[in-house]
Amino acid sequence: MASPLINRRDLDFVLYELLDVLALTVEPRWAEHRRETFDAAIDTAHDLAVTHFRSHNAKGDRQEPSFDGERVHVIPEVKVALDAYVAAGFMAASKDYDLGGMQLPWTVAQACSAMFQAANVGTAAYPFLTIAAANLIEAFGSAEMRQRFMRPMLDGRFFGTMCLSEPQAGSSLADIRTRAEPAGEGVYRLFGNKMWISGGDHELSDNIVHLVLAKIPGGGAGVKGISLFVVPKLLVDDDGRLGARNDVRLAGVNHKMGYRGAINTVLNFGEKDGAVGYLVGEPHRGLAYMFQMMNEARIGVGAGAVMLAYTAYLAALEYARVRPQGRPVEAKDPSQPMVPIVEHADVKRMLLYQKAVSEGGLHLCLYAAWLVDRQHATTDTTERRDLTLLLDTLTPIVKGWLSEACLRANELAVQVLGGYGYTREYPVEQHYRDQRLNPIHEGTDGIQALDLLGRKMTMQGGAGWALLHDAIAAAIMRARAHDDLVPLAAQLDAALLTLARVRDRLLETMAGGRIPLALANASHFLDLAGLVVFGWMWLWQATVIASAPPTDDAEMASFRAGKLQACRYAFTYELARVPYLASLLESLDDTTLGMRSEWF
Amino acid sequence: MASPLINRRDLDFVLYELLDVLALTVEPRWAEHRRETFDAAIDTAHDLAVTHFRSHNAKGDRQEPSFDGERVHVIPEVKVALDAYVAAGFMAASKDYDLGGMQLPWTVAQACSAMFQAANVGTAAYPFLTIAAANLIEAFGSAEMRQRFMRPMLDGRFFGTMCLSEPQAGSSLADIRTRAEPAGEGVYRLFGNKMWISGGDHELSDNIVHLVLAKIPGGGAGVKGISLFVVPKLLVDDDGRLGARNDVRLAGVNHKMGYRGAINTVLNFGEKDGAVGYLVGEPHRGLAYMFQMMNEARIGVGAGAVMLAYTAYLAALEYARVRPQGRPVEAKDPSQPMVPIVEHADVKRMLLYQKAVSEGGLHLCLYAAWLVDRQHATTDTTERRDLTLLLDTLTPIVKGWLSEACLRANELAVQVLGGYGYTREYPVEQHYRDQRLNPIHEGTDGIQALDLLGRKMTMQGGAGWALLHDAIAAAIMRARAHDDLVPLAAQLDAALLTLARVRDRLLETMAGGRIPLALANASHFLDLAGLVVFGWMWLWQATVIASAPPTDDAEMASFRAGKLQACRYAFTYELARVPYLASLLESLDDTTLGMRSEWF
Repeated sequence: MASPLINRRDLDFVLYELLDVLALTVEPRWAEHRRETFDAAIDTAHDLAVTHFRSHNAKGDRQEPSFDGERVHVIPEVKVALDAYVAAGFMAASKDYDLGGMQLPWTVAQACSAMFQAANVGTAAYPFLTIAAANLIEAFGSAEMRQRFMRPMLDGRFFGTMCLSEPQAGSSLADIRTRAEPAGEGVYRLFGNKMWISGGDHELSDNIVHLVLAKIPGGGAGVKGISLFVVPKLLVDDDGRLGARNDVRLAGVNHKMGYRGAINTVLNFGEKDGAVGYLVGEPHRGLAYMFQMMNEARIGVGAGAVMLAYTAYLAALEYARVRPQGRPVEAKDPSQPMVPIVEHADVKRMLLYQKAVSEGGLHLCLYAAWLVDRQHATTDTTERRDLTLLLDTLTPIVKGWLSEACLRANELAVQVLGGYGYTREYPVEQHYRDQRLNPIHEGTDGIQALDLLGRKMTMQGGAGWALLHDAIAAAIMRARAHDDLVPLAAQLDAALLTLARVRDRLLETMAGGRIPLALANASHFLDLAGLVVFGWMWLWQATVIASAPPTDDAEMASFRAGKLQACRYAFTYELARVPYLASLLESLDDTTLGMRSEWF
Repeated sequence: MASPLINRRDLDFVLYELLDVLALTVEPRWAEHRRETFDAAIDTAHDLAVTHFRSHNAKGDRQEPSFDGERVHVIPEVKVALDAYVAAGFMAASKDYDLGGMQLPWTVAQACSAMFQAANVGTAAYPFLTIAAANLIEAFGSAEMRQRFMRPMLDGRFFGTMCLSEPQAGSSLADIRTRAEPAGEGVYRLFGNKMWISGGDHELSDNIVHLVLAKIPGGGAGVKGISLFVVPKLLVDDDGRLGARNDVRLAGVNHKMGYRGAINTVLNFGEKDGAVGYLVGEPHRGLAYMFQMMNEARIGVGAGAVMLAYTAYLAALEYARVRPQGRPVEAKDPSQPMVPIVEHADVKRMLLYQKAVSEGGLHLCLYAAWLVDRQHATTDTTERRDLTLLLDTLTPIVKGWLSEACLRANELAVQVLGGYGYTREYPVEQHYRDQRLNPIHEGTDGIQALDLLGRKMTMQGGAGWALLHDAIAAAIMRARAHDDLVPLAAQLDAALLTLARVRDRLLETMAGGRIPLALANASHFLDLAGLVVFGWMWLWQATVIASAPPTDDAEMASFRAGKLQACRYAFTYELARVPYLASLLESLDDTTLGMRSEWF
């Protein structure tokens, strides 16, 4: 099985036609880039992903990392892959030239990342956490901290982790107990246990930089008392030399359903004298800082979900095109040859769902990355604020809605392969298990739903919502210029109006003090808002296709026809659920809220 | 973790209140039974399932069966469990006393089976296939065949398999190539390869009886040329003694995502002189015979799906009741203690879905079993025909709709446990992987959908549909007698009318020659019909609850309140999707049908 990681024509369509990333090169920061340099980076990422990441994806799943009580064992292919990744410069893909980076727009860096996620989401987790941790230190750490910890991370010598959850506090960060005792001059001693720490221990890098949430005694209650610390596995002296082992111990390894290539650990801080930690920024502002990393990670989860769906879709498509089975429903003459299963309407349905979610999802994730680039590019503070608000509003949708939809897509990839899809001989089986994590980590989808409805829909007087609404409305307006798209534009317009009405109703309910009732069906609100955004992406794609000059190229014509059909599918089969969701939400139904524990 | 396999109060409610199985004891066949004997059988099954089946469920998953080229290795606990199962008489639970059976109604036998499926669906697969194979030989085999093969199966000395699929013909039985050359007096020599054969080789029993579909040269094309054969692993002489090894060779073992306790194999028949096989019944009627076993297996798949959902639901519920995390959305004071997650509305939503599907699904599966009992009990040929038609109509819903809904339920059980649910330390992880098989085997859900719409909705002039319609209409009428249920009755009435209207439209479309268009969205039709049947089960349950005398028992009151809330959930959240599905189906949308392979 060697189906493509991604449809490169589609990726080019997203980057250069939908998002017009070349327009970013007018900015001084990216002035040295042009299409050739973007393509070269993506080509390199693709080839590296195929050669060094996909090649051990199944093996890394079968032989998951283990801990013998002293050392962590990881199959050797992982280090080879990560060394090649570092050597090719991807750890610093978006960073400044003078930090050794490629100074790529974040959008293009994410397109490169997509290759690694598609090829091997487990191994890809190590650099992605490292990049997110480096970004956090860059944003909030001192110059000295950047020099001592961030630089070696960008060089790939140190890897990073994020240490938030604890055994008793998974989703509830207010309840973390890890404490940081002051030990002078920004140095603290940390004591506590952290759970679900990906990349928490290994020998893939010279050192590991843990970004740890802990409470300094005397701080506020709940999340207001949380501070952020850099806690290295090995202490680092002023000259950057590695010193003694810090008081951080690997207490156990979690054995997961999938995503097995990435070691996931329980870490104990301070079993002896306390783990040496360095305060990042101000005390008690740790959660606000960490949200930068979490938001980046949440968009990364959405992107990872999309790429697992995308690569599995292409594997299912390849199988469906070559696997003969059965005959057309109207001509079941057994003396005639069987047809490839891609000819069966129900198989097309399953593939269309996967195509719609994968390609629409890729568009949404790269659009989110493009918003990050625009934030950095603009000198207009109002515009920057708006871009930030819009991205914040979209984040729970990117993470929560896409991870659900992509899990469904992977489920259907297995289904297309039938019995074969259920065996470990085909990659879709692992993709499905890997995908099952995405609705859980970095805040469960239930938490994303509460974030969207309870926070993002109301923040700054609804400014984030207004920006989202206006962006969608503008896309609808552009679509109306094309006669063929008028019905789809009208359907999305109606869905957007419905979403606005539902939001009003729920916000009024909250304002009236009935917060639990308004939030009770937040998951359905996430589904509703996600569908509208999904429809937006597809209408946007259809509009660009409709605006393109005629083509004589048969493959291009097929590409465009497929896009329009996938758009039609997205609207007719998926967006069509909007009235059902709206009706449920507007009824303020209290069935779930009113259920009692003892009634189950 | 030792949550219950099933809610016994709920099982009793289904058996004794909804289905009134004690009424079956007026029949001579079951006259010696009474509630005590039924309960004793279920108690025994439960205890055996906990002691001998659940105890190695995780181990059987970790150490799946293997083949060293000579012998199959299965962990020893499987044989211990199956020996205990046989010793307790469950292999012949529903069979005649003079065959060594317990002569239980099929409904009660299925309630017993449910325990084993909940405890360990992999190990339970061996006896279930054996029972289904024995039933097939009983129905269509000669007296001599019953003596030589069926009796040792009921005694647990021989196990059975069903050999339908081939590597090139999974779902397309018309295209099987295994051929049976006549070798005199009902004896044939078989040559061919069979794929996906559960229990295809092992040393758990003295012998294995394969029921094999093959084509006798000169027969009709496609399915009309298929005959059914008994092919033992070891030949059996006239006195029942085991002889030489037959020409059946284990060619390989499939490595599955889940359901790993049950060995799944590729078998080669006739690598040497041909495998000795005995024709069952008439030549060329094999598929019709096999359909008895397939239909039984399909209902068994639905029941297995329900029990995986049910036991995972109870595990998730137990976790949710004891796991503190977070606080009420309206009172997030961090100085207050955390609440168990069962108090969060979104967790209740996930548990309510699981409860509704598990308990409603159990009801539906046992109702299907009850129809089998009524078929056997009635002396009225018209009634028997009607019962058969109704069961045939329900079969694709039991298999196809329930396996999808139960997969969703297992997905939510994992979600309730969050990160823990994703680890192999908790049973819900395995339940989810085990469940993923159910939408695939015994005819994929896509095939069930075509069976429902293309065959069951039209057979015998729509007689099966009319019976289903009338049964549901009668339940609606009964519900209307209770004021509280009038709105639910009205909702189901509307849904039933909608289903009838959609069916009419699709049948007209087929009659007009547009068969591919009418069948293109068959999966959505299955969802629609499944929702109506699901609503029927829940309205039926609510009606019986509403008719019950008042109770002072707090637990009983909670049980009833929970039932009514689950019913409300089923209608408000699930049945509410009916208009969306109907609108899609009535539009005769051709998006999937019109998609072309090259457009993907």
